[in-house]
Amino acid sequence: MRFFDKLDARIKASKSILCVGLDPDVSKLPGGIGIAEFNREIIAATADFCCAYKLNFAFYEAAGIEGANALKDTLKMIPGDIPVIADAKRADIGNTSRAYAVAIFDYFRFDAATVNPYMGFDSLQPFIECDDKGVFILCRTSNPGSADFQSLFTIWSGKRRAIFEIVAMKAEEWNTRGNIGLVMGATHIDELGLIRRELPGMPFLVPGVGAQGGDLAAVIEHGNTSAPGGLIINSSRQIIFASSGPDFASGAAQVAKSLRDEMDSCR
Amino acid sequence: MRFFDKLDARIKASKSILCVGLDPDVSKLPGGIGIAEFNREIIAATADFCCAYKLNFAFYEAAGIEGANALKDTLKMIPGDIPVIADAKRADIGNTSRAYAVAIFDYFRFDAATVNPYMGFDSLQPFIECDDKGVFILCRTSNPGSADFQSLFTIWSGKRRAIFEIVAMKAEEWNTRGNIGLVMGATHIDELGLIRRELPGMPFLVPGVGAQGGDLAAVIEHGNTSAPGGLIINSSRQIIFASSGPDFASGAAQVAKSLRDEMDSCR
Repeated sequence: MRFFDKLDARIKASKSILCVGLDPDVSKLPGGIGIAEFNREIIAATADFCCAYKLNFAFYEAAGIEGANALKDTLKMIPGDIPVIADAKRADIGNTSRAYAVAIFDYFRFDAATVNPYMGFDSLQPFIECDDKGVFILCRTSNPGSADFQSLFTIWSGKRRAIFEIVAMKAEEWNTRGNIGLVMGATHIDELGLIRRELPGMPFLVPGVGAQGGDLAAVIEHGNTSAPGGLIINSSRQIIFASSGPDFASGAAQVAKSLRDEMDSCR
Repeated sequence: MRFFDKLDARIKASKSILCVGLDPDVSKLPGGIGIAEFNREIIAATADFCCAYKLNFAFYEAAGIEGANALKDTLKMIPGDIPVIADAKRADIGNTSRAYAVAIFDYFRFDAATVNPYMGFDSLQPFIECDDKGVFILCRTSNPGSADFQSLFTIWSGKRRAIFEIVAMKAEEWNTRGNIGLVMGATHIDELGLIRRELPGMPFLVPGVGAQGGDLAAVIEHGNTSAPGGLIINSSRQIIFASSGPDFASGAAQVAKSLRDEMDSCR
């Protein structure tokens, strides 16, 4: 099944546009528990309330070989009807980027990946060519430094446009397979709304609510779309580290359910 | 020892500005040999002729857990006086990018890393803050798609500048610790020369000679500098896959020596 169809089916089944970020920062894990076991409990507690899981590779790589094993094990724990996104922000020259796509889609068997556009089309092509997989291209990211280059202006077809707008327009042009979406940070609502108006059918993966301060209701007001799988909102730390004690799983379940319900009420 | 001092000492000792890319594409390895064993023979054959090794993570990640183990093992094989660069092209929001820096510098113990500037300063800061480590920021990359965004023009302090020029100027501004360099593709000599004129002391890591078609002599003519460790040129496939037979190591040694000598004669 194609990624955005799988995502859309899951959104309907779970009545949720919440994506849960499984970002097991080892310095924050409850005492004595390993990454895989932590994830197992978080997944059991939150699966009913989410449309997708997103795993940021950095937190697994920081744990070395143990982290790579935990990443592999975690993929097996997630119910098959829930899409899983590799938040790896990869890109390299063509033959090398293909190796990254092999790692993410063939070896670990993720359903989708985030990629970084700085190196241009051929650096993303090996991901995009995987028809059944989803590809979320970084557009306007949620961090403060995103303004350094993403918000520089250029002239494009006679109009003044920010670099992130050009990324969005190129993404639309490259989206011949219908498997591309954009990463739009919740902390930049004006920019998110601008791209939504320009590209009504482009799926958005939105990080940056919760710990980073983005406004949930505003994201939905300005980012919503009727396109299948067209808006999902990620929360990581706010959910998985809701409690640092032995009740971390039930804490995560409570926050996930509450976020799901809050998002649902805004749609 | 600080990265560019270590690199400079090694350049002098080896009389070489050649960086050997250990990019073990498993589809090209001589029959039956594993990644770690392949690297062991390549390193033994080429160590005399190079100033640094660069390992592109994609080829290790494509091999999953075995690849992660091979990456770890390879680091232990490389003589301690030869700097090792993680070509990982990472970047993420601050707390996440820190986890990538932990993986690369603390867990695997690389001396330097390549990073992607699209997300801006705070996404690179955890790398830059490691005083003794080197950080190569992607500027103008060697692939065809690099023109898509890197070559868009903006107006900066009243002058028309390409995005990759802004990246270079920001890199200079962020280089308060003297540990930043730029990745400048050999396939774009005009752009490489432009940045060299603007930033005479900025170190360049130059990929794109050999299989990608860049001109070695032109890179040295337009990229040379007297700054310590200021110009190193990478070659991967041309060296490590010089022969696909059982003589792959002696084939690699021959090409590495010949490239080293050719580079030395141009300096």
